[in-house]
Amino acid sequence: MSATGDLRIDADRLWQRLMQLAEIGANGNGGVDRQALTDGEHAAWRLVTAWGRQAGLLPSTDPAANLFLTLPGREGHLPPVLIGSHLDTQPTGGRFDGAFGVMAALEVATAISEKGIVPRRDIVVVSWTNEEGSRFAPGMMGSEAFAGVRPLEVIRAVSDRDGVSAGREIDRIHAAFPEIGRRPLGFEVAAYIEPHIEQDAVLERAGKMIGVVTGIQGKKTFEIEILGAKGHAGTLPMADRRDALLAFARIAAALEREVGGRDAAVKFTIGRLDAYPNAPSVVPEKVVFRVDLRHPDNGVLEGCGERLRQLCGQHAPPCIVSATELVSAPSNGFDPALQRAIGAAAERRRLSAMAMISFAGHDARQMARLCPSAMIFIPCRDGISHDENEWTEPAHVAAGAQVLLDVVTDLADVWRV
Amino acid sequence: MSATGDLRIDADRLWQRLMQLAEIGANGNGGVDRQALTDGEHAAWRLVTAWGRQAGLLPSTDPAANLFLTLPGREGHLPPVLIGSHLDTQPTGGRFDGAFGVMAALEVATAISEKGIVPRRDIVVVSWTNEEGSRFAPGMMGSEAFAGVRPLEVIRAVSDRDGVSAGREIDRIHAAFPEIGRRPLGFEVAAYIEPHIEQDAVLERAGKMIGVVTGIQGKKTFEIEILGAKGHAGTLPMADRRDALLAFARIAAALEREVGGRDAAVKFTIGRLDAYPNAPSVVPEKVVFRVDLRHPDNGVLEGCGERLRQLCGQHAPPCIVSATELVSAPSNGFDPALQRAIGAAAERRRLSAMAMISFAGHDARQMARLCPSAMIFIPCRDGISHDENEWTEPAHVAAGAQVLLDVVTDLADVWRV
Repeated sequence: MSATGDLRIDADRLWQRLMQLAEIGANGNGGVDRQALTDGEHAAWRLVTAWGRQAGLLPSTDPAANLFLTLPGREGHLPPVLIGSHLDTQPTGGRFDGAFGVMAALEVATAISEKGIVPRRDIVVVSWTNEEGSRFAPGMMGSEAFAGVRPLEVIRAVSDRDGVSAGREIDRIHAAFPEIGRRPLGFEVAAYIEPHIEQDAVLERAGKMIGVVTGIQGKKTFEIEILGAKGHAGTLPMADRRDALLAFARIAAALEREVGGRDAAVKFTIGRLDAYPNAPSVVPEKVVFRVDLRHPDNGVLEGCGERLRQLCGQHAPPCIVSATELVSAPSNGFDPALQRAIGAAAERRRLSAMAMISFAGHDARQMARLCPSAMIFIPCRDGISHDENEWTEPAHVAAGAQVLLDVVTDLADVWRV
Repeated sequence: MSATGDLRIDADRLWQRLMQLAEIGANGNGGVDRQALTDGEHAAWRLVTAWGRQAGLLPSTDPAANLFLTLPGREGHLPPVLIGSHLDTQPTGGRFDGAFGVMAALEVATAISEKGIVPRRDIVVVSWTNEEGSRFAPGMMGSEAFAGVRPLEVIRAVSDRDGVSAGREIDRIHAAFPEIGRRPLGFEVAAYIEPHIEQDAVLERAGKMIGVVTGIQGKKTFEIEILGAKGHAGTLPMADRRDALLAFARIAAALEREVGGRDAAVKFTIGRLDAYPNAPSVVPEKVVFRVDLRHPDNGVLEGCGERLRQLCGQHAPPCIVSATELVSAPSNGFDPALQRAIGAAAERRRLSAMAMISFAGHDARQMARLCPSAMIFIPCRDGISHDENEWTEPAHVAAGAQVLLDVVTDLADVWRV
């Protein structure tokens, strides 16, 4: 590898395209609702593939409806360099989560292509299907299918709230784009790099431009069901009750005391809770809730999961409790050589950088099982994400994309003749 | 007053009419869905007023859509004896709650009338509007309007889930029955007696047929709102969170320890809870829940309400909490002379009876502010009510109606010539 030129991204074009993309699903307040496989995502595919074609990138899609835009290299038999993120958003999403990664990757491929340079390896821009998991839960569908973590049939069978299956919507987006080539699921990848907004305020507080992501903290999701018995609020004596909501309160309060308070790195969230029949004068007979547990250390994470099960067993009686582990994603570390390359690129560009862990999950978690992988973080104002107020400065967007270009230039052997 | 004959209810007719009434709104499993002011209640009015007319009872209705069926007495200027309950049910209601009281009252008036007896006082059968409060919350609308506890305008303004106001539905039922006389809201009443299934298993466990109700335990309802801040489950450190659902858990667990455990007579129920945005990976920013507090002693009830407010203030931080008292219905005691009359009637009929408090609220709570009032309870199998499995034996139905007839015979001076 030898750097023999100075490739630059076009910061204005990248920013303007990001803003244009944000008009698809725009809610009028600066927010974006462009959930997975909706008409909004169709429109985003149309726009992004058109930009790709202008730069000579060939679109293709696989059975999980992942979208690829390939800048062909001189040695097409070599595994490509894969870069990108996702185009779907939360229903109350912003303009940068996911979109920044795809558009930065597109800008990198465009900047190389428009100079007439043919890299040695293919450079492939990717948009993974349903990273967010808001419409079809859980998320990371496309990257999990690509990495073989979840079978395609399981993914296709997931339905949204209206009963529409992901499978039907995958077929629908394929049918809407007959001109886009089809490829089988999965292929060998030389390296994967995902640029993303940080979704926390660590870079902002530290006054840094670039986060060199060392890994993603581990995550476990449990669905817990408490079964009690309903009864009349006025007549059933307290001693005879099996109140599922009070059992929940005992479990949650204990969890906060014993798990939440122990270790500054542990996080647990009960984001979703449904009580039945949820009527003012009826003792609740059933509560279903989800616990999202995170920790960078896999051993500690396992221990927290065990403690959660113990606390459920201890505090649920006289109700009956069952805990199902829905997700178990251990903490992972990204490729050290790629981390060094990202840090070095930032240093060469005089962009302040720091090493940091990702507390949020990303498609890169799956790719790290398959190939050397890494992430480039840029700041996120006040740490606000999944919100119309999600914001990152144009200078940060440009910085992240430039670092990606510099790293990809080396990885794809752009200058090797 | 002097008893000079032996009037008997017709137990078969009463049971068959109760079962016929239960066909209106029948859900096929033995349950009944006949909510307030629906077409089902129209059909029930039609049936009940037809039966009343056969017995010479004159129907009338007031601005709250309470339905009255009057057996005219010899001295119409005297305040009448009022007996009855309600025809509306919960959406998952049974065949006896409310219906038993109205049909027992109708049977009593019919039994007197068909003997050609004209009582000294009018005997008025009543069906109060919207006792249940499931369609238009809160319930007891008709009796509260009658007793002047809630202004008619406030009642009319309440809307159901489809946005239909109670006022519009009151006008609709009036329009559907142009032949039914209109009367102003409220009139002087000599005595009010409401027969009802117990909705608990106290009579059943004690092996008694008749409950002489001493009073209704007090009730307070609070709506409590906890305001926190939303955040990303993976990135926001626990120490920086204002998690509204964890604040709820602390409050509810403390309430159970400090209020629920102190006194066997106290009851508190958190039947309804809504968390926002209720998404798996988002720290909950808002929780709204209702606390239903009950106690027979008004002083203790007030104390519990105060303690609830204190516990909210103590355990909510760093979230913000506000508690609004939606309902404050103090404990009331029924008329001692009427209680003695009910007990004596049961004894004469060799029906085992016991004094007991009502843990559920009833329209008689409102009437007790206006006139000597009482309730007659009959057993309720396994204490199950508001359910398709609600059941009471034909013998219990007959016993309750007979005791009512005996008491009314005296109150209305049936035998005084």
